[in-house]
Amino acid sequence: MAIVLGIDPGSRITGYGVISAEGSRLQYIDSGCIRTESAVDLSEKLDMIFRGIGQVIRLHLPAQVGIEQVFMARNADSALKLGQARGAAIVACTTHQLPVSEYSARQVKQSVVGTGAAEKTQVQRMVCHLLGLDKSPQADAADALAVAICHTHMSQSMLRLAGARKVRRGRLRL
Amino acid sequence: MAIVLGIDPGSRITGYGVISAEGSRLQYIDSGCIRTESAVDLSEKLDMIFRGIGQVIRLHLPAQVGIEQVFMARNADSALKLGQARGAAIVACTTHQLPVSEYSARQVKQSVVGTGAAEKTQVQRMVCHLLGLDKSPQADAADALAVAICHTHMSQSMLRLAGARKVRRGRLRL
Repeated sequence: MAIVLGIDPGSRITGYGVISAEGSRLQYIDSGCIRTESAVDLSEKLDMIFRGIGQVIRLHLPAQVGIEQVFMARNADSALKLGQARGAAIVACTTHQLPVSEYSARQVKQSVVGTGAAEKTQVQRMVCHLLGLDKSPQADAADALAVAICHTHMSQSMLRLAGARKVRRGRLRL
Repeated sequence: MAIVLGIDPGSRITGYGVISAEGSRLQYIDSGCIRTESAVDLSEKLDMIFRGIGQVIRLHLPAQVGIEQVFMARNADSALKLGQARGAAIVACTTHQLPVSEYSARQVKQSVVGTGAAEKTQVQRMVCHLLGLDKSPQADAADALAVAICHTHMSQSMLRLAGARKVRRGRLRL
């Protein structure tokens, strides 16, 4: 059983989602938001993200982390703010020796809904469906859960691919 | 005597500079670069910045940190990369309970050279002059030292201002 943490970083709200995967069976563990609107300055804001993600890691002990790639920021100023939040979230993972994989929004949608052009609400509905949730978590937490699901699917595909290669190599040797 | 750390974060090279200040007397302690070009991925790169700044802090035990504000990034992509590096550097300071002050490039130039429109080479020459260095450190390290000098000047001005206010208040009471 692998525990996966998904992160959706933001300069005002950073979402997180924790799931476990055993084969194709996914299970919801936890999700939530780190709200940084109350921070008095940038360093306090980034510290809240760093400490918040660190707490989630120490509580649930995930083995892997998925984070959403930023494919297009509105402008340089919002890209800088988002980058700072991402930087704080990523080092919170690396200080716990956790590998961090990045996924584009398109990859996440493709993996969760089946099409890279899916709407945000479709992603949220599928997150609820796949994890057996009665109601959708807060939007950023749901996005983080979607990244965690995407990472699980991608890791399983990689493992299957590696397995298939091993079998092919074995056959070649015979 | 106050030990001040200056940081000039970048996605490829992060400069740092450590100085001590006793009244108007500034002294060079250390400076250098954290080069992250060899990192295999983003999380390794940010981890190198986080750990590198952490090492400098544990070695020299600064009481305060100054970091250059980004006033204009070339585009959203470079702003995101710079933001990530800044985020990693800032949380390296906050995890050591260090307050981080931000200064614009103009404030740094004004403080070190005396004019906000100074050239980069003028700043480097003044850094050498103020710290009694025979030759200029690497460009990013020199920029970081300039931020540390700026922070020292700004803090001293604030203290003088606070002192003057106290005196004025005292006089009013008489």
